[in-house]
Amino acid sequence: MDALAQLQRQLGEFAAARDWDQFHSPKNLSMALSVEVAELLEHFQWLTEEQSAHLDAERLAKVRLEAADVFIYLLRLADKLGIDLVRAAHDKIALNEQKYPADRVRGDSRKYSDY
Amino acid sequence: MDALAQLQRQLGEFAAARDWDQFHSPKNLSMALSVEVAELLEHFQWLTEEQSAHLDAERLAKVRLEAADVFIYLLRLADKLGIDLVRAAHDKIALNEQKYPADRVRGDSRKYSDY
Amino acid sequence: MDALAQLQRQLGEFAAARDWDQFHSPKNLSMALSVEVAELLEHFQWLTEEQSAHLDAERLAKVRLEAADVFIYLLRLADKLGIDLVRAAHDKIALNEQKYPADRVRGDSRKYSDY
Amino acid sequence: MDALAQLQRQLGEFAAARDWDQFHSPKNLSMALSVEVAELLEHFQWLTEEQSAHLDAERLAKVRLEAADVFIYLLRLADKLGIDLVRAAHDKIALNEQKYPADRVRGDSRKYSDY
Repeated sequence: MDALAQLQRQLGEFAAARDWDQFHSPKNLSMALSVEVAELLEHFQWLTEEQSAHLDAERLAKVRLEAADVFIYLLRLADKLGIDLVRAAHDKIALNEQKYPADRVRGDSRKYSDY
Repeated sequence: MDALAQLQRQLGEFAAARDWDQFHSPKNLSMALSVEVAELLEHFQWLTEEQSAHLDAERLAKVRLEAADVFIYLLRLADKLGIDLVRAAHDKIALNEQKYPADRVRGDSRKYSDY
Repeated sequence: MDALAQLQRQLGEFAAARDWDQFHSPKNLSMALSVEVAELLEHFQWLTEEQSAHLDAERLAKVRLEAADVFIYLLRLADKLGIDLVRAAHDKIALNEQKYPADRVRGDSRKYSDY
Repeated sequence: MDALAQLQRQLGEFAAARDWDQFHSPKNLSMALSVEVAELLEHFQWLTEEQSAHLDAERLAKVRLEAADVFIYLLRLADKLGIDLVRAAHDKIALNEQKYPADRVRGDSRKYSDY
């Protein structure tokens, strides 16, 4: 069993042991995912881009756990919907390779901003 | 190299080939992550919870690619910040085990809603 | 001076008195707006739709202040960009009237879900 | 009738004429609000803060309509919950005046980042 499937099993057991599965509809999980992403974003909202690339250890430790929360809800949602995230990501990258050929969009921020 | 590290290397090469690395500050990536989560959420906004658990094939295919986008930006952000998502998730689950002991919060939606 | 312009002047003075104007770029304000909306959403994530329509007084008081935060950042962002929100809303409603003629989309949830 | 109450009446009539009221639970409206904020944020995600403060006319026209969408869903949600946004904003500003005394937090970005 790979690392993601193992995490998903653990998260499923965690929810089942608390009788929380009843709350985990895909609709609700997408909301929870959205809330966790905002808690991550919150750390960066008043920082410059430069500062965001050089977090101190205390901030980074917090950001790391917020990123974990995003990952946890994404794994849980994918599990509920039967989505294999790694395969889906490979498929999406292949689509992006076609949509944004390197030789055509290179350094073109306008194209990028429509990305 | 595991599946996530491999995806991260691919995403790094994808950005480098397009000279897009300049846009990928953690601040900007957290914004992009937020936008992708909203595109996922959008599919569920007018559905009932029940409907969200039984998507038709066409909708599910779209949701799958939106979930992939969320995953891609999360991997990219984690890479930029040097975060190992799988280890961070294990740490967060351990913290949640302590914070929400199964025998104390079982079936308690009020506790859950403060989660 | 109308109620919104008066609020915007107050918010401008609040920021100026604290030397916080330096943080209020439209980019940053859009992030803050996003964080506040998530804090509002968080109250509803585990509720049923029915429950969300019948909040108890304590929850409603919290939701009211979160809605205020969303309004505050929206007013601030509009002020920075020179947008008149009331006129913009009237323009958008007029566009929606054309896009969704009542006699064509009535009770059609599929059309609605593409809204 | 003031400008906001008038907009809220118009939005209520718009929904009623299309039989869309059934979709407008506070839970769903908070999701729609979140989606609209992300569409606003999307315009700023790859811009520098400086660029975000100097949008060209074409971009500004788009941002203006996205801000209108945020405003529309916020008004609709407030209407459904019986919240007077202007009064709530005044209450919140008064709370912020107490929480962040100008002479104590002036120019202190650390305090601000905890805001």
